[in-house]
Amino acid sequence: MRVEFHFDFGSPNAYLCHRVIPEIESRTGTKFEYVPVLLGGVFKLTGNISPAVAQKGIRNKPEYEALEMRRFVSRHGIEDFRMNPHFPVDTLAIMRGAIVARTTGCFEQYIDGIYRFMWSDPRKMDDLEIIRGSLSECSLDADAILEGLKDPKIKAELVRSTEASVARGNFGSPSFFVEDELFFGKDRLDAVEREIVSRTRYPLSPPSDI
Amino acid sequence: MRVEFHFDFGSPNAYLCHRVIPEIESRTGTKFEYVPVLLGGVFKLTGNISPAVAQKGIRNKPEYEALEMRRFVSRHGIEDFRMNPHFPVDTLAIMRGAIVARTTGCFEQYIDGIYRFMWSDPRKMDDLEIIRGSLSECSLDADAILEGLKDPKIKAELVRSTEASVARGNFGSPSFFVEDELFFGKDRLDAVEREIVSRTRYPLSPPSDI
Repeated sequence: MRVEFHFDFGSPNAYLCHRVIPEIESRTGTKFEYVPVLLGGVFKLTGNISPAVAQKGIRNKPEYEALEMRRFVSRHGIEDFRMNPHFPVDTLAIMRGAIVARTTGCFEQYIDGIYRFMWSDPRKMDDLEIIRGSLSECSLDADAILEGLKDPKIKAELVRSTEASVARGNFGSPSFFVEDELFFGKDRLDAVEREIVSRTRYPLSPPSDI
Repeated sequence: MRVEFHFDFGSPNAYLCHRVIPEIESRTGTKFEYVPVLLGGVFKLTGNISPAVAQKGIRNKPEYEALEMRRFVSRHGIEDFRMNPHFPVDTLAIMRGAIVARTTGCFEQYIDGIYRFMWSDPRKMDDLEIIRGSLSECSLDADAILEGLKDPKIKAELVRSTEASVARGNFGSPSFFVEDELFFGKDRLDAVEREIVSRTRYPLSPPSDI
């Protein structure tokens, strides 16, 4: 069974999911595949806008979204989440970097490192020199990754991945696919887990006598 | 413990919650108090807009919301939900009617009846003659309720209830309050139930030795 997490480092709600995914992997025995998509590209392709923009000026709604973040953080015992003071961060470079890291075999280490400097020990991660220093601190080959960002194949792959995600129904972040079933939002993680469990029990379809 | 469902008959997601609330009441032993609020008034007071308007023209998002409705309906075994072909229905009269019904002691019967003719056997429920016929079919005193709609005290009470809801944090539908904790959206019903259960176990605060 293929379970995908279509992520952009710039989405705080995607980060919160990233922190809970290991628990779901452990409970279900199913590994999530991380798929880099550029959220700005998703918004351009769909005409969607970020929650921060959509909620601006609406009474009570931003406060409620902040409350739901606190509830999620508290429920899952996440103690080191910090809103990035540079939000919204332009994630083009670090998302291209994710493609480079995936190609060069340091994908998981890169994801954990960049997420840390976005939402736990937050930095201005659209500044190439800050990215360079952050990668080095994570014992990643910063020069090689930054050099890779310029590769037209890397740029094209992020575009392709983003377009493919939207073609399958994505319109924002965080998004999950269990096979071809889309689930949107950190509050649907319970539903993602139920879907995995139900498909694990009946990988094709339920036996006819049930 | 006070658990409130702030509802407007015009919201299909509120209707779907109405169908699931009895299960939660039964599991938790806690009755939900239905509080009529005019969703159009909530939108005016907060600057919010309906999901139908917000999603219009956004690729994939309306399809996803429809998918989440089908999932909810399927998960909870709701077999007779029908989108109202007259949507969006102006609910001013039937929401004022809810205040009349509450005042005259036929609140539950009125809610079940109006919901039925909004989302199960859907009619154009902003037409006073259709409302009259529908109330009569439910063995309600249609003439008395329709007469009550004109009462300035009834009109004022719906305004007061709507303003009070917004003052407590509401910005849309469906909304729930467990004491003063707001939960928004049909997908938060699980969270509402968890909150009720946790407060039932520890009505004030957890014992200090736990």
